[in-house]
Amino acid sequence: MNHQTQVGIIGAGPAGLLLSQLLDQQGIRSVVLENRSQERVESRQRAGLLEQNTVDRLRQAGATDRLDREGLVHDGIILSYNGQRHRIDLVELTSGSRVTIYAQTEVVKDLIRLRLGSTPLDAEVPISFEAEATRIDGLESSSPTIHYTQNGEAHTLTCDFVAGCDGFHGISRASIPAELTKVYDKVYPYCWLGILAKVPPSTHELIYAYHERGFALHSMRSPEISRLYVQCNVTDTLEDWPDERIWAELQIRLGSTGWVLAEGPILEKTITPMRSFVSEPMQYGRLFLSGDSAHIVPPTGAKGLNMAVADTGSLFDALMTWYREGSRANLDTYTAGCMRRVWRVQEFSNFMTELLHHNPDRTPFDAHLQTSRFNQLITSRAASALVAENYVGHAAKQSAEATT
Amino acid sequence: MNHQTQVGIIGAGPAGLLLSQLLDQQGIRSVVLENRSQERVESRQRAGLLEQNTVDRLRQAGATDRLDREGLVHDGIILSYNGQRHRIDLVELTSGSRVTIYAQTEVVKDLIRLRLGSTPLDAEVPISFEAEATRIDGLESSSPTIHYTQNGEAHTLTCDFVAGCDGFHGISRASIPAELTKVYDKVYPYCWLGILAKVPPSTHELIYAYHERGFALHSMRSPEISRLYVQCNVTDTLEDWPDERIWAELQIRLGSTGWVLAEGPILEKTITPMRSFVSEPMQYGRLFLSGDSAHIVPPTGAKGLNMAVADTGSLFDALMTWYREGSRANLDTYTAGCMRRVWRVQEFSNFMTELLHHNPDRTPFDAHLQTSRFNQLITSRAASALVAENYVGHAAKQSAEATT
Repeated sequence: MNHQTQVGIIGAGPAGLLLSQLLDQQGIRSVVLENRSQERVESRQRAGLLEQNTVDRLRQAGATDRLDREGLVHDGIILSYNGQRHRIDLVELTSGSRVTIYAQTEVVKDLIRLRLGSTPLDAEVPISFEAEATRIDGLESSSPTIHYTQNGEAHTLTCDFVAGCDGFHGISRASIPAELTKVYDKVYPYCWLGILAKVPPSTHELIYAYHERGFALHSMRSPEISRLYVQCNVTDTLEDWPDERIWAELQIRLGSTGWVLAEGPILEKTITPMRSFVSEPMQYGRLFLSGDSAHIVPPTGAKGLNMAVADTGSLFDALMTWYREGSRANLDTYTAGCMRRVWRVQEFSNFMTELLHHNPDRTPFDAHLQTSRFNQLITSRAASALVAENYVGHAAKQSAEATT
Repeated sequence: MNHQTQVGIIGAGPAGLLLSQLLDQQGIRSVVLENRSQERVESRQRAGLLEQNTVDRLRQAGATDRLDREGLVHDGIILSYNGQRHRIDLVELTSGSRVTIYAQTEVVKDLIRLRLGSTPLDAEVPISFEAEATRIDGLESSSPTIHYTQNGEAHTLTCDFVAGCDGFHGISRASIPAELTKVYDKVYPYCWLGILAKVPPSTHELIYAYHERGFALHSMRSPEISRLYVQCNVTDTLEDWPDERIWAELQIRLGSTGWVLAEGPILEKTITPMRSFVSEPMQYGRLFLSGDSAHIVPPTGAKGLNMAVADTGSLFDALMTWYREGSRANLDTYTAGCMRRVWRVQEFSNFMTELLHHNPDRTPFDAHLQTSRFNQLITSRAASALVAENYVGHAAKQSAEATT
């Protein structure tokens, strides 16, 4: 069956859903094609830390009712180095910026509710779940077509533009001719084992810990649910990490005199590889990539979701210049406008990752430099301010402005 | 012949000479043994940028008469990245700190003049040139002995303490039992080709340039003499670099719109390898290392001479606690007191080196991170402040204080 819309969006993650909602508010029709079920999309556990920029875009989309009620606003983060703690006062060091803890899953649920609850601009259902995009045609023309299958049937969606929001493994990036594409990447020699635990967080603010035994992170999903991570080996499987071992390592790595980490039932356990990846350009003809489809970061800087929302904001702004003024100018500079921010975020994510992990391949010389970098955060306000402004997203915002 | 003194100092570089002068002012006898001739020592071209900490110690030693007249005080440095310039305003970013351009050779001449001109505290000549230390005995005892040869004759110098100020290739470090020593190092895959040129500097402030063709630095010795460097390959020899090639590369790498680099006769040409090196501990029994004998840095951060003076200041303070109060306390903690500063300086020197050189082994991903770090200096005051406070030496001073 042949369908038509203005913007065809592949992927119902935060990028695709947010773009669809922002466009809808401006009277631009879109369809989101998502290869998984609604239930699956709404249950995937991902990131959970929102920069102010991200909250602002979600507010623009009208998607902050529940976030405003349930989000946990944080004024600082705690870094720990072999048990020595150092607080980064985000508010003080950035003249007032904060971050908000609110799970990506909840952002997705809120955006899906908004989209499905809105009066459709045409007969189309705004989100097609279990619709697997298989090919994109005519990207050089003014009406590209997305081919997809749903319930065993072949469909096409013809549109003005295609937004590739289908993540690292999606088909969008692969639709850009390989000879035009440059790929940059770095694989880290360790992974994160993450758990959700049914126990109130033992800390008000996130604790990022370097320990000689490896990295650990104490985060949270809600006042009742803790989110915790330990660095593990790339060859480890979940069988290598029974619950007792996870808690024992968390106790040691997060440990600090006079502080107690409360334990509880583990609800979920996953292992995540650590990789930096950038593909350039982020566009080809009428196709524009946003978020993980174009670049991924190791999670240490909490930037994946925030970068996806920033890309989506830029793409939305550029599309509105097209639909309002008929000008391709901002679409043509989409990649260039994103790249400085992308590399700033990549650099910061790499910095935080290398600061806080035990790299089994590091030299003894590099180990001492790592310690010295942590000590500098304690002794130098400028060093802490640099981490703070990157963490809250000021640095990426400033950098993006510097290109224009 | 057997000689005796209180502090036997090996090496008449800035560390050894300064220590000797500071001790003399307090009535403590010392002898400096130097394997080269006075003429050779006074003509070696080395570093030429003094932190305020360094100027303060030289002032304490009474060695700043000529420095105050001839030193060039700089309020900032200029960084350049493929022709885009960014000034680091040292004064503004560090609340008033400056650096002074004054060649290490001149510091050495001033200190030698002071030492040779002073009334000897005993019959000893305070500096023995062309006296080659060959062995140190009895470091575990209270009266170690330095064996040396001069004019073909064997001598010994018995003392309370031995100060090893004999540089990277000296015998002092090798006198610490290998099984007690940890060595850390990193060799960079490029060298510096440095020239002295008889031409007034084309810039008031130092220009540190990254260029895709490699690093370049425009420094100066005096209002008439320029000091310039270009990154070259580790396999290059001086034959690979005729004068025309040097100037051509300097023109390209330092180039900036509307700016002209004046050329002139090249007086001296040398190739310097780039290495980071730390040996720990910096002491054994009655032996204490200071400066290059314990650690070397790549010259990009201009820290070698400053670190030697900082070590020497700490060693002098610790020796005075011994001679005044009979307490070994500050001698016992000499290494620990130095190490945090040493690693801060190593980290900064490594940062500046990696920021500004074209590493032929870098990945395309790392090349983009390097560019992003430079861009961050432009957009973030905190990033520039962090470079400024490390460059003027505040960071090392603060770090040293944090350990006490």
